[in-house]
Amino acid sequence: MLAGFSIIPIGVGSSIGDQLAVALKIVDESGLPYKAGPMNTVIEGEWEEIIPLIKKCRDAIMEKEDRVVISITIDDRKGKLNMIEEKLSSVEKRLGKSLKK
Amino acid sequence: MLAGFSIIPIGVGSSIGDQLAVALKIVDESGLPYKAGPMNTVIEGEWEEIIPLIKKCRDAIMEKEDRVVISITIDDRKGKLNMIEEKLSSVEKRLGKSLKK
Amino acid sequence: MLAGFSIIPIGVGSSIGDQLAVALKIVDESGLPYKAGPMNTVIEGEWEEIIPLIKKCRDAIMEKEDRVVISITIDDRKGKLNMIEEKLSSVEKRLGKSLKK
Amino acid sequence: MLAGFSIIPIGVGSSIGDQLAVALKIVDESGLPYKAGPMNTVIEGEWEEIIPLIKKCRDAIMEKEDRVVISITIDDRKGKLNMIEEKLSSVEKRLGKSLKK
Repeated sequence: MLAGFSIIPIGVGSSIGDQLAVALKIVDESGLPYKAGPMNTVIEGEWEEIIPLIKKCRDAIMEKEDRVVISITIDDRKGKLNMIEEKLSSVEKRLGKSLKK
Repeated sequence: MLAGFSIIPIGVGSSIGDQLAVALKIVDESGLPYKAGPMNTVIEGEWEEIIPLIKKCRDAIMEKEDRVVISITIDDRKGKLNMIEEKLSSVEKRLGKSLKK
Repeated sequence: MLAGFSIIPIGVGSSIGDQLAVALKIVDESGLPYKAGPMNTVIEGEWEEIIPLIKKCRDAIMEKEDRVVISITIDDRKGKLNMIEEKLSSVEKRLGKSLKK
Repeated sequence: MLAGFSIIPIGVGSSIGDQLAVALKIVDESGLPYKAGPMNTVIEGEWEEIIPLIKKCRDAIMEKEDRVVISITIDDRKGKLNMIEEKLSSVEKRLGKSLKK
């Protein structure tokens, strides 16, 4: 499955950039395929790999924050692998042109 | 914490209503405080209670479906209880009037 | 169509409750059918009614805030009316029981 | 502001890939800065540029579909330009390493 997620710290003195760095370091070190984007980070893996990884990011951020809003969107498809690359390349084939990625 | 979630089956022959009923039956029987709304269901509890419950809903729906899109939004706040009722009642106090709920 | 939305102010000194009250006052006075929930507010109407209303809420909040995160989820269905009530009542009929709403 | 959005067709016979291609062609031709990702497309611009563009994508898709679910997440920040590039590059500076993008 693919999961896109974001964690936004809420409240006095929160620095979104600092906390984004904390989360992306954890994702980068996990070894799972991922793609960091301007609005969320997309990870490919199984539920048992991805959800604990998001929990680890949340726990690290909650060490310094009192409140966070977490958004997770999951595209869960039986028997599909390498969705992180394939989804856009199949669209590019349909359009016959490259997209900005 | 509060978590609002929805599970949408994708593809040929999917009935959203049937699958919504499957998920809401599981949530209702969990014993956790919840509120069913027209766009999502909000549950109150700890990460270890809520996330496995969403997983249980997803597993039940994936028995009949090949693909689902799951959205989860979490409001995670240290030391806050009864957020499911309190959030709107504190807004109603500010406004001095009742809202449609 | 149905649209669920939330507007979260980000940054130093932001009060989510105050800004939620600002937004819900505007929605309540709009005359459109709505349902306020603990995680979002759902409005029923046409694109041309709902989107300008969300914009009005955003403009009112941005008078006092420097940064907001807005989430909008739209369920857009040809020829469907009264979805705000009907969606859950059809699930309740399937289950043969009332849900917490 | 930045807006990440996705449009998912729901129901019998819907092809997500076809409709994604329809939407991305419209976004690509709009001339606004954008980044296509595996879970959503992020556009940078003003409300009056981005929202009508999403509406145009929705109208094109609704020509062939009866039901779609649209998700929009907006990061709206006064006086910030070039957020689409800057957000991640500032994180990479903090981490002292490149991320997968």
